Amino acid sequence: MRQERVVIDAVHPQVECGRFFIKRVVGETVTVSADVLPDGHDVMQAEVLYKHQGERQWRQVRMHPLGNDRYQASFTVEKQGLYQYKIRGWVDYALNWQHGIEAKLRDGQHVRSELLDGVQYLEYLAEAASGADAGYALELASCFPDEKRYQEAVEAAISKHLHELFLEHPKRALAHTADPLEVYVDRQRANFSTWYEFFPRSASETPGKHGTFKDCERLLPRIAQLGFDTVYLPPVHPIGELNRKGKNNSTTAGPGDCGVPWAIGSKKGGHRHLHPELGTEADFRRLIRKAGEHGLEIAMDLAFQAAPDHPYIKEHPEWFRKRPDGTIQYAENPPKKYQDIVNFYFESKDYKALWQELLEVTLQWVGFGVKIFRVDNPHTKPFFFWNWLIDEVKKKHPDVLFLAEAFSRPRIMQQLAKQGFSQSYTYFTWRVHKQEIIDYMVELTQGEMREYYRPNFWPNTPDINPYHLQGAGEAMHMIRYALAALLCGNIGIYGPVFEYMVSQPLPNREEYLDSEKYEIRHWDWTLQNKLVHIIGRLNHIRRAHAALQQTNNLVFCRLENPNLLAFYKWDDARTDEVLVVINLDPNESQQGNVQLPYHAMGRGQRALEMYDLLTQTAYRWQHEWNFVELHPNLPMHVFQIRG
Amino acid sequence: MRQERVVIDAVHPQVECGRFFIKRVVGETVTVSADVLPDGHDVMQAEVLYKHQGERQWRQVRMHPLGNDRYQASFTVEKQGLYQYKIRGWVDYALNWQHGIEAKLRDGQHVRSELLDGVQYLEYLAEAASGADAGYALELASCFPDEKRYQEAVEAAISKHLHELFLEHPKRALAHTADPLEVYVDRQRANFSTWYEFFPRSASETPGKHGTFKDCERLLPRIAQLGFDTVYLPPVHPIGELNRKGKNNSTTAGPGDCGVPWAIGSKKGGHRHLHPELGTEADFRRLIRKAGEHGLEIAMDLAFQAAPDHPYIKEHPEWFRKRPDGTIQYAENPPKKYQDIVNFYFESKDYKALWQELLEVTLQWVGFGVKIFRVDNPHTKPFFFWNWLIDEVKKKHPDVLFLAEAFSRPRIMQQLAKQGFSQSYTYFTWRVHKQEIIDYMVELTQGEMREYYRPNFWPNTPDINPYHLQGAGEAMHMIRYALAALLCGNIGIYGPVFEYMVSQPLPNREEYLDSEKYEIRHWDWTLQNKLVHIIGRLNHIRRAHAALQQTNNLVFCRLENPNLLAFYKWDDARTDEVLVVINLDPNESQQGNVQLPYHAMGRGQRALEMYDLLTQTAYRWQHEWNFVELHPNLPMHVFQIRG
Repeated sequence: MRQERVVIDAVHPQVECGRFFIKRVVGETVTVSADVLPDGHDVMQAEVLYKHQGERQWRQVRMHPLGNDRYQASFTVEKQGLYQYKIRGWVDYALNWQHGIEAKLRDGQHVRSELLDGVQYLEYLAEAASGADAGYALELASCFPDEKRYQEAVEAAISKHLHELFLEHPKRALAHTADPLEVYVDRQRANFSTWYEFFPRSASETPGKHGTFKDCERLLPRIAQLGFDTVYLPPVHPIGELNRKGKNNSTTAGPGDCGVPWAIGSKKGGHRHLHPELGTEADFRRLIRKAGEHGLEIAMDLAFQAAPDHPYIKEHPEWFRKRPDGTIQYAENPPKKYQDIVNFYFESKDYKALWQELLEVTLQWVGFGVKIFRVDNPHTKPFFFWNWLIDEVKKKHPDVLFLAEAFSRPRIMQQLAKQGFSQSYTYFTWRVHKQEIIDYMVELTQGEMREYYRPNFWPNTPDINPYHLQGAGEAMHMIRYALAALLCGNIGIYGPVFEYMVSQPLPNREEYLDSEKYEIRHWDWTLQNKLVHIIGRLNHIRRAHAALQQTNNLVFCRLENPNLLAFYKWDDARTDEVLVVINLDPNESQQGNVQLPYHAMGRGQRALEMYDLLTQTAYRWQHEWNFVELHPNLPMHVFQIRG
Repeated sequence: MRQERVVIDAVHPQVECGRFFIKRVVGETVTVSADVLPDGHDVMQAEVLYKHQGERQWRQVRMHPLGNDRYQASFTVEKQGLYQYKIRGWVDYALNWQHGIEAKLRDGQHVRSELLDGVQYLEYLAEAASGADAGYALELASCFPDEKRYQEAVEAAISKHLHELFLEHPKRALAHTADPLEVYVDRQRANFSTWYEFFPRSASETPGKHGTFKDCERLLPRIAQLGFDTVYLPPVHPIGELNRKGKNNSTTAGPGDCGVPWAIGSKKGGHRHLHPELGTEADFRRLIRKAGEHGLEIAMDLAFQAAPDHPYIKEHPEWFRKRPDGTIQYAENPPKKYQDIVNFYFESKDYKALWQELLEVTLQWVGFGVKIFRVDNPHTKPFFFWNWLIDEVKKKHPDVLFLAEAFSRPRIMQQLAKQGFSQSYTYFTWRVHKQEIIDYMVELTQGEMREYYRPNFWPNTPDINPYHLQGAGEAMHMIRYALAALLCGNIGIYGPVFEYMVSQPLPNREEYLDSEKYEIRHWDWTLQNKLVHIIGRLNHIRRAHAALQQTNNLVFCRLENPNLLAFYKWDDARTDEVLVVINLDPNESQQGNVQLPYHAMGRGQRALEMYDLLTQTAYRWQHEWNFVELHPNLPMHVFQIRG
């Protein structure tokens, strides 16, 4: 026998009935809407209650009607960590009384009885309000029953002032509150980050020499000047020697072969240790510190797997599956065998110790100052393991971020994000044509994924040398970088092969020839080219423009030409608006007319100044449709919208 | 630290995260689907578990993959009452082992070690299976390690037989089970019912005389012969005398005026009593029994409101709101006042006694044999009250059905259905044009509403004389009845004004002139006309065709002519298929080409016999597109699809 009068349904946003939190970064807005309705015709009020997990008091923000019994309100999240939000609704008897008396007066009725009835609401108001407002309510409470003051009472009863006092001091009688939902708030880098990945062992100035953390320090100024903020290093732990892979993934390594950094562990140590040829713990700490001085964070790789000579295998044989002959089972995806890798057995009887050790490994590097982890193949470890590990780390260190490197089926990638990963790799790497880019962006930004899946767009990775970049020139590389940088808040490249366009593949494979995964390469990091210049310009434009530091506020513009892609982006506060046009054709000039998305812009037709941030040229767009032409020499406009 | 490997998301169907049950009738199918996925590449199994609330053991049905990690299974509900259903998933190590060994053999690998590994799955199988299967598993368990029998072991390992045994006897190691959901199962009349509403007081053979329950008995054969199954009587309780309404809703009643049946209660009694002029309790019991003999059920009106002279008002003044002067507050929707009606105060301090009394009123009439209630204006009483009342009644009497008479905003009507109403009135009464009919049917049958909202289509009611029927002729009435009867499982008319086309309105109002709500009318119930004949034919066709006894299996056919509507319907078992074409134009013949919906029919192009159930004429449709022409004389084809 529940007496509440209001029901609350279809609360948005929520992911899987609130089993998973939605995600935001500090300073972002959570806009909550729901169907909220009472029986009958009574006037109703609804509010969103929210609080940070560290707070006791719920804060309130009143919801406003959107029509069709749907209500909405927004709040801003200001601190890292978990917030709760929930909706409360009630029949507002005071407002209902005022609404009734208004209707009767309009109808010419005498409202003496209604005025008497209203005294109870004034008495409540006198208690709930303070100062002058309380006094006013008390004064009205004595005026309403006074027949001689009827006219005065009527005017006060329907006054805007009384309405606002009722609104401000509601009596939430028989209020109904929906189940709370959660939003996890990360620091802003979760939404906006620009990654540069390179192999430290290729960082030496001397050809053929193994690079070191000290060599990496030398590269930091270049990376910072190019506008990157996150330096991601493949695993820096000792590399297995047993069954080590040779160049180009050959199954037998020669004596000079340096192995695959993801085959972690040898007699020199495991996940808690550093590869001796890279340097010492002190060197690594120093690299992290130096990076910080350049505004850069070092992102480490969490690759939870072992080489066959990893110390764990002798110390904790129960953490690995055994074959019937008692030997340790190497990784396989039948019929393929990966003899240089042994997977952890997450279902081991001793799983608690294993999980705890992997957590402590993570926390150890957090202790070194690492706050970003790129997680290797998370989809081959249990979902609930990640949920637990990420939760445990973030309980102590809410500023730690995890990027899920799963290039797998859609539901798997989504599930990892739901379970807690802060960012996720995407299919962007293979989305090339206009319509497939639009479709994918709509899926990421306009549906449920926008609430929990933070995409990170990579034009290439050490594992993926996509066909469209193989042998491609400057234009195609500019296009791919611009698409990533302007569509998505989080992006990254694997360099210097990207900016130096070293894209020779293994024949008919999306893999690099002579990949750094299997050997040391030598690079002249001082080389300048147009692509390097454009990457730097785009990165700095991203830094200066809030509209580009998020992903979800995105609308594509109508533009007939299938080789021209145009879109409009803005920040939550709409202090910054950007309109981008990109020529997807690396070979030919393309022309077309862009339609301004007036509805999304909240604007009607008027002249706009379109300031191209790349060429620093201002255009004046007078009309809804505007001519553009882009040559492959500079295949994009990045307009800031002014005025 | 949860070790389960499989996650389960996006379970369908569910309403509001399972806060409300979905609905079915006995014999219907529940098709459950979900995203079910493990980490990594292991072979997975999933099943739906379900049970009636009265059962202990869960029944199981294995799910099959739909692609993109979505799985599905169906079960049939066989008993009235509440069922639970939930999904369980697990990594199937035995199937995974078999999958691996197959891949390795295809690759030409030697699988000695894998055979040894497989013995554990055979040993489990020997325990789980029985008889010959267990023996076979044991025999294999000794064969697999025997190197001399390698070839035999390999053949058995990848055999279909072993695969089926593994499928049949899974070891559900570390299975993950999603939260249970609920489905409420009603008797079949909840899905399929044909209502005839009339005013008992107009049932007398003598003009001017107040009809009685005995007069109603006389009408039962006619109603039954026309193929109706539910006779709905407006309230049969004593009618208030204080502030009684006169003819045509005038505010002052003359001495001969009989009042509004919904203004319940006078010195002659209230909701527990019968209007003396209609007859005695014995007469009412006899009417219910006689109706049953004709295959008819009597549906009563639950109108939870009181006339100002209802006995409750003196006996339980605390069940009503008081005005400041101490008098009882009559109903109002400012500025409108309804002085002949007093609403119950559901928030009264004594609300528990009030609610309990209303429950007992309902149960009293259930005791008389009434199993169907049409609930008047449920949307002006608290949602949670209905949830409680319906639940309490159905706990004892799961065969009782409640029809919600709310013509209100969409979310209100939906909410009442979610809270437990078995059927609901709809906007069909005002959906006239082709596209608005299609849009409304898609909303009712293809979205979430199909799971909880059972529509009941009424071309007219005593409250609604829709503009398109005012002064309309036979064709329009046939069209409206055919649309209701062929689109929707549950339908009803307010007669005999409908079949005798007595549709004179109050000027510019959707109300009847000289409405029976305010006065006694006299009818010659023996009159025959074409409309009566067609209503009877359509009702009998509905009775003979399972496709027409449900609402949700519906696909509209392409047909260019905006005056022709064509649709295809089928029953869950697809033992019956019907294709309907209706001419929506009451004035002109209409022609067009109907496209057969091959995809929905699960058929390709082949000749079909289309048997018109109204004209008993067979047509042969050879092609996908077929010519039809319908004259207003008989503005519909009701084809049974044969062959």
